[in-house]
Amino acid sequence: MPGFLDLGFAKVDIDRLERRGFPEAALAEGKSPDDLTQILMALVEKNGVALATRAGLDHFEKVIEALPDARFESIGRCIVIERTPLQRLAGNVAVVSAGTTDRPVVEEARVTLELFGNSVEIIQDVGVAGIERTLAARDRIESCSAAIVVAGMDGALPSVIAGLVSTPVIAVPTSVGYGASFGGIAALLSMLNSCASGVTVVNIDNGFGAAYAASLINREITGSNVRG
Amino acid sequence: MPGFLDLGFAKVDIDRLERRGFPEAALAEGKSPDDLTQILMALVEKNGVALATRAGLDHFEKVIEALPDARFESIGRCIVIERTPLQRLAGNVAVVSAGTTDRPVVEEARVTLELFGNSVEIIQDVGVAGIERTLAARDRIESCSAAIVVAGMDGALPSVIAGLVSTPVIAVPTSVGYGASFGGIAALLSMLNSCASGVTVVNIDNGFGAAYAASLINREITGSNVRG
Amino acid sequence: MPGFLDLGFAKVDIDRLERRGFPEAALAEGKSPDDLTQILMALVEKNGVALATRAGLDHFEKVIEALPDARFESIGRCIVIERTPLQRLAGNVAVVSAGTTDRPVVEEARVTLELFGNSVEIIQDVGVAGIERTLAARDRIESCSAAIVVAGMDGALPSVIAGLVSTPVIAVPTSVGYGASFGGIAALLSMLNSCASGVTVVNIDNGFGAAYAASLINREITGSNVRG
Amino acid sequence: MPGFLDLGFAKVDIDRLERRGFPEAALAEGKSPDDLTQILMALVEKNGVALATRAGLDHFEKVIEALPDARFESIGRCIVIERTPLQRLAGNVAVVSAGTTDRPVVEEARVTLELFGNSVEIIQDVGVAGIERTLAARDRIESCSAAIVVAGMDGALPSVIAGLVSTPVIAVPTSVGYGASFGGIAALLSMLNSCASGVTVVNIDNGFGAAYAASLINREITGSNVRG
Amino acid sequence: MPGFLDLGFAKVDIDRLERRGFPEAALAEGKSPDDLTQILMALVEKNGVALATRAGLDHFEKVIEALPDARFESIGRCIVIERTPLQRLAGNVAVVSAGTTDRPVVEEARVTLELFGNSVEIIQDVGVAGIERTLAARDRIESCSAAIVVAGMDGALPSVIAGLVSTPVIAVPTSVGYGASFGGIAALLSMLNSCASGVTVVNIDNGFGAAYAASLINREITGSNVRG
Amino acid sequence: MPGFLDLGFAKVDIDRLERRGFPEAALAEGKSPDDLTQILMALVEKNGVALATRAGLDHFEKVIEALPDARFESIGRCIVIERTPLQRLAGNVAVVSAGTTDRPVVEEARVTLELFGNSVEIIQDVGVAGIERTLAARDRIESCSAAIVVAGMDGALPSVIAGLVSTPVIAVPTSVGYGASFGGIAALLSMLNSCASGVTVVNIDNGFGAAYAASLINREITGSNVRG
Amino acid sequence: MPGFLDLGFAKVDIDRLERRGFPEAALAEGKSPDDLTQILMALVEKNGVALATRAGLDHFEKVIEALPDARFESIGRCIVIERTPLQRLAGNVAVVSAGTTDRPVVEEARVTLELFGNSVEIIQDVGVAGIERTLAARDRIESCSAAIVVAGMDGALPSVIAGLVSTPVIAVPTSVGYGASFGGIAALLSMLNSCASGVTVVNIDNGFGAAYAASLINREITGSNVRG
Amino acid sequence: MPGFLDLGFAKVDIDRLERRGFPEAALAEGKSPDDLTQILMALVEKNGVALATRAGLDHFEKVIEALPDARFESIGRCIVIERTPLQRLAGNVAVVSAGTTDRPVVEEARVTLELFGNSVEIIQDVGVAGIERTLAARDRIESCSAAIVVAGMDGALPSVIAGLVSTPVIAVPTSVGYGASFGGIAALLSMLNSCASGVTVVNIDNGFGAAYAASLINREITGSNVRG
Repeated sequence: MPGFLDLGFAKVDIDRLERRGFPEAALAEGKSPDDLTQILMALVEKNGVALATRAGLDHFEKVIEALPDARFESIGRCIVIERTPLQRLAGNVAVVSAGTTDRPVVEEARVTLELFGNSVEIIQDVGVAGIERTLAARDRIESCSAAIVVAGMDGALPSVIAGLVSTPVIAVPTSVGYGASFGGIAALLSMLNSCASGVTVVNIDNGFGAAYAASLINREITGSNVRG
Repeated sequence: MPGFLDLGFAKVDIDRLERRGFPEAALAEGKSPDDLTQILMALVEKNGVALATRAGLDHFEKVIEALPDARFESIGRCIVIERTPLQRLAGNVAVVSAGTTDRPVVEEARVTLELFGNSVEIIQDVGVAGIERTLAARDRIESCSAAIVVAGMDGALPSVIAGLVSTPVIAVPTSVGYGASFGGIAALLSMLNSCASGVTVVNIDNGFGAAYAASLINREITGSNVRG
Repeated sequence: MPGFLDLGFAKVDIDRLERRGFPEAALAEGKSPDDLTQILMALVEKNGVALATRAGLDHFEKVIEALPDARFESIGRCIVIERTPLQRLAGNVAVVSAGTTDRPVVEEARVTLELFGNSVEIIQDVGVAGIERTLAARDRIESCSAAIVVAGMDGALPSVIAGLVSTPVIAVPTSVGYGASFGGIAALLSMLNSCASGVTVVNIDNGFGAAYAASLINREITGSNVRG
Repeated sequence: MPGFLDLGFAKVDIDRLERRGFPEAALAEGKSPDDLTQILMALVEKNGVALATRAGLDHFEKVIEALPDARFESIGRCIVIERTPLQRLAGNVAVVSAGTTDRPVVEEARVTLELFGNSVEIIQDVGVAGIERTLAARDRIESCSAAIVVAGMDGALPSVIAGLVSTPVIAVPTSVGYGASFGGIAALLSMLNSCASGVTVVNIDNGFGAAYAASLINREITGSNVRG
Repeated sequence: MPGFLDLGFAKVDIDRLERRGFPEAALAEGKSPDDLTQILMALVEKNGVALATRAGLDHFEKVIEALPDARFESIGRCIVIERTPLQRLAGNVAVVSAGTTDRPVVEEARVTLELFGNSVEIIQDVGVAGIERTLAARDRIESCSAAIVVAGMDGALPSVIAGLVSTPVIAVPTSVGYGASFGGIAALLSMLNSCASGVTVVNIDNGFGAAYAASLINREITGSNVRG
Repeated sequence: MPGFLDLGFAKVDIDRLERRGFPEAALAEGKSPDDLTQILMALVEKNGVALATRAGLDHFEKVIEALPDARFESIGRCIVIERTPLQRLAGNVAVVSAGTTDRPVVEEARVTLELFGNSVEIIQDVGVAGIERTLAARDRIESCSAAIVVAGMDGALPSVIAGLVSTPVIAVPTSVGYGASFGGIAALLSMLNSCASGVTVVNIDNGFGAAYAASLINREITGSNVRG
Repeated sequence: MPGFLDLGFAKVDIDRLERRGFPEAALAEGKSPDDLTQILMALVEKNGVALATRAGLDHFEKVIEALPDARFESIGRCIVIERTPLQRLAGNVAVVSAGTTDRPVVEEARVTLELFGNSVEIIQDVGVAGIERTLAARDRIESCSAAIVVAGMDGALPSVIAGLVSTPVIAVPTSVGYGASFGGIAALLSMLNSCASGVTVVNIDNGFGAAYAASLINREITGSNVRG
Repeated sequence: MPGFLDLGFAKVDIDRLERRGFPEAALAEGKSPDDLTQILMALVEKNGVALATRAGLDHFEKVIEALPDARFESIGRCIVIERTPLQRLAGNVAVVSAGTTDRPVVEEARVTLELFGNSVEIIQDVGVAGIERTLAARDRIESCSAAIVVAGMDGALPSVIAGLVSTPVIAVPTSVGYGASFGGIAALLSMLNSCASGVTVVNIDNGFGAAYAASLINREITGSNVRG
């Protein structure tokens, strides 16, 4: 018996929760509302929860017809269905941002983290141009088992934070900025070249991916790993 | 009292071991053998261990004069001094590579991981063009608390491995390849766009950075975090 | 007598079917509906068939007035007129995709292949993050005389598939993805650097070009080559 | 029984000949002469032939000690061992170049093609600035079952040739040129955007990859496919 | 007395006709219709003619109120006022294009050339994929004193044409294409690396600039140079 | 007591005026009108003045409800509230532009400079293609304590001006241009490589940043520095 | 009878002098001294003159054995053989440079121009940072029938010069500079975006190409065109 | 009388000291030792001082023959001749670096600043990964009239420093780093996108340019401006 469900136009990887510890999510962008709905129905039936990222209102309006308990997180652009909550994890995950315009990415990370069983600490607008704000966040971040650090423009925040704490730092560049920020490339390169050791990086604006990685780390503490 | 030692030309961050759980390492490239030697002496005196990455033989020949117990790891280009070993950590870390030419990066990661107290699983040359090799590595990777996956050229290996296991995957693009590989950019972009959720990425050829991040994760399991 | 028809604003290469084995197609994008209609009329009169790619509804509405047997393939954005079908070819061509959002490119390839006389195997959504789906497609691809492999994001699928089969693989990067996917560049570079030998690549989203190349290959088996 | 041979530092894909129709080749660049020698010994023992590309004289001098029947093709930078020739294939493959400085890539393709059982037509220095030279090559190319077209600088040659013949064209951009040729990027982009339909492209200077792809196509005519 | 007219928000270079032989033109894009109108009024009063490029209908509707003899060339997006025609020049200028979608750039060049006193030969849609069309244009181009060659996609046309004739060739890359054409960069790079000697290049889609350069050349034959 | 005001979604750096001499400004782009209003209210209450850059009419309409003395500078896209004017500074600052389409950036700089207490000299449309216009501006620029030089396209103006005067020159590339101007990259690179010594550069279209830097310089002459 | 001479490894376009007015030159870079020598011998026999560009001393030492009247222009890296001088042309061509380090490109242009029958005006080191030097060159440039303007770094010189004269300006970016000059890309982009109308551009460091284009223009004045 | 000295191969801008306040410097790179010597002799005769940047030992050995009082600053790669010191300036200039490998750029800035009459504060190795080091430098930087901030890798240092002080900050990206630092591009982009207002930027590794700009600012305080 294969580990996927063949819908014809899609092969839903329903086996992923078991294999990787967390379920597949659907990238709504580029999918028709109808196709997205079918995929979410298959996922929620198998896993008890389902998540779509980068969703628009048009996606949600179709999904809600078939899945009336779906919830739309508009700032983070996520559709969430949570019938059988996933296992609660032991540690906290921090989501830290440099500026207020990074909020959509913060929200995508938060929604994912909460669905995946993590407790979340949100610490926003602590960019390094006002370093006092950054330093004030140190203790809350140190108390977490992973920190997602979100920044656009110069992408300097993860370097400072990673230098302050022993928490693993996952950096998320955002497309915030203009001109030579090149839609997030400046921040991305800055983070890849962080002078603080051990910073890892995900794609531009990829709050979901950072949350997935942080959840994998956080679950290890909880001692409920797939392998365990 | 400041957390750093002022050598005039350098300010050695001797406080880092306490603050972050692992000590500062020195990037040898671009430093004179004399300067490097002084920095390593300061680090080993304070921390009991010291590490220089991207070191050449000329660096080592100078260092060994002052620090006769220094060791040169030639493939990984590291200088290691280990007088008072750091705390042993509980979990294993896997270092997986796509091809044999990725070996210098594998070695830089291995040397760092071992110095930082991790047990290491080396799994080399399991690139996806012979997928059977990749699949055969699954169980050993699943048993580790973090996996460093090293690949050049198309950078496809982390996507396949992350899809197979629940272990956090840290991808390291290498400068292996030619033409449109652009010194590792092709692999870097591939990894940032991995279709497998939760892959995080470090700089091209940055085996040290990946090892630092994996050590931060592995220590969390051990329950010996700075915050703990 | 020249091998082209001079419409004033355009010189239609009506000789191409004879010279290359398959007729010229018209790129609708950037052409006015009126100009496109005239070009298609010239092509269908000479060749018995005509194809426009990257067409919009506004193009089709004008074309159908003059060519009432025209057909609009909306997902693949093609206009097709097929009065005298081209010669049927002996072998099959596989069109394989990594995800459901690659569908428009899959469709452009399928429509072209069918018009050019090929039988087509469609295998969608078998991306490498769920490798079981990929492996399950092996035998169907091996049975074809050419395989078009379509993927966005990390572009890893052609490397895995080409490693599994003896069928020539033509890789098509798609603009699916966001952030550092750069509209398909990440997938394009990944494919050009494939660790599996013998993968050839066409332009981003160029389903038509891949189908043209696959048809040239497939016709060779059929033994009906221009030269033959 | 696995399809690969585990040498410790390498896992040789000895199964590839059976699976794909042609054997694995070793990329010498970045491998030590010792490691390369071991890999070639494993390959030749299993397959009767072995090939290393991008090899230097230092590689060859080590290889010849262990494999005295090895041959060094210095312009194409290949090491060849051919004990039990592979099956002869029915059709010819053309290798066409724009200029005399493209010769190393032409040679890498030729050596690979001949080892893989193809007959080869070499047509050099027919760049489009002297279009008469290009046109004069038409008939010889049309008579082949695949054409590898090699060009640097503006990369214009494949567009003209593909417009003339019904033979599948595989374009190889070379790093020939200076300034804004960017080591072959100009030619690569030109080829990906060829105005002639059906041109497929391989990596810059990748004569081996083009030859592998052409061999896969040529074998289909011969009717000796893996699947057949 | 300065050579410019100070309008406050603009300093119109009314001296340019005398200094360079041809008048200043106004780039409409990014200017308000009111500002553009004032600039054109100043230019036409001084020079007897005026030209705005990259103009929209909104620009034209404002201009026509103040300058009722203004003409809108909609495909080439130019506004032209021609009260006292400039000196007629002796030679012809050819404008040659690869495809029908290059027409807006062809038109911008044609309008400029005619206003500047040149006779123009238009030769469209002679791209190299149907080389017979290209070759058929040779004699008409050879008879001109300059040739503007317009192409998108692979930008291969100028290389072939420059190889055929003794006429100076000015290449204009266009933003026609998709994917890895990068809005005309592929064609631009191809032209800068032309294998045919002596091709010069202007900015992407810059039909005006090419026409300006061609007019400077053509006037030299006429013997009416500023210096003469 | 921290130097910032915590609004929950934002941490306003109200301390910045004291620390740096000039207050924080709010980047309106990417902020909701409600959030922007709250931030401006906090800033104006603390500092007596407030500034938002890259604001739209929708931002202004919300702000004016809460802050009826707000002013909208539509060309420069700034919202200004000025209750207690900042200290007047002694020297003038010049704002020089190459063309009329650079005006929005000129205006953003002017509005900022005036709010920050500088007298401003505006010198527009003196691009180097009509060098007489450039030279005529020399004396007015030399009389200022700093010069902001704004240019798109070839970005050549700062090189000429910096060669003429002893005033510090801050260059601002603009996104004016098309084709290979790449949204201001051509001008940015030109300015970073200025053949005139001592030119410094800010981000593309960053009139605000240039004005901030010029104000820091101008205040030094005034002798009212924070440190003084 | 074909218009080219087939040397086996090369097809020398001996017909080019007749077809284009000037002979083919050989790019020495990437050719072996032996191959280069054979090509030059074929060219000089047919045309009475021969030119190799980008030649090294190793090339020259081989060439001089076979062609004892060969001359090495070491700064411009050209090998010249001139037995039957080409027709003298009527007008002068100016070669203008921004700085002393542009000299190799100036020399390549000068050598080519003189061989092709032009009289040459050399005007060096008149970069715009000392605009007085630039302005002082105006009259000499205006008296020429074409001007080659060579500049690295910001590439600003052609914009200023083209604004001053009615002479056609061919801009040559050079790889002079460092950092963000990217080997001449900054200058290249600057020139493509020149604010002075009618500037045309050749590849980075391509003094030969600029000279070829200038010769085509200059010959038109002379009235000795191929077509004439 | 022109403001420059014509050496034939060079036109030395001896007027620059008077016009701009500081003398021309010679970029040694790309100049022959002989040419450099002549230029420095002309400069020192006119100005009493002379400076060459990016000089090698071969340059110095030639210069010292003609100018025996020349001094070689080997780390900063400068040749200095100082016969009649320039006017001493009132304020200090800080030169701050992120790491020890930035030292060559620090030295080039220091040598230039001192020759130009500034007092210099050197503060090295205070990168943000050990933020305590950065914060400890605040008061010394605040006491200066300008600060040059030098950093490679993530280029984050200027953002933190500019947020702390009222001193104008000139950021210098360095080519320190590897992989995705792209020879300083990551740092350059980071600095251009600094989240701290008013940071201005010079070219990668351009310590001289930063020093020139800082000197222009510092002289304004001194009240000895050219205009004054």
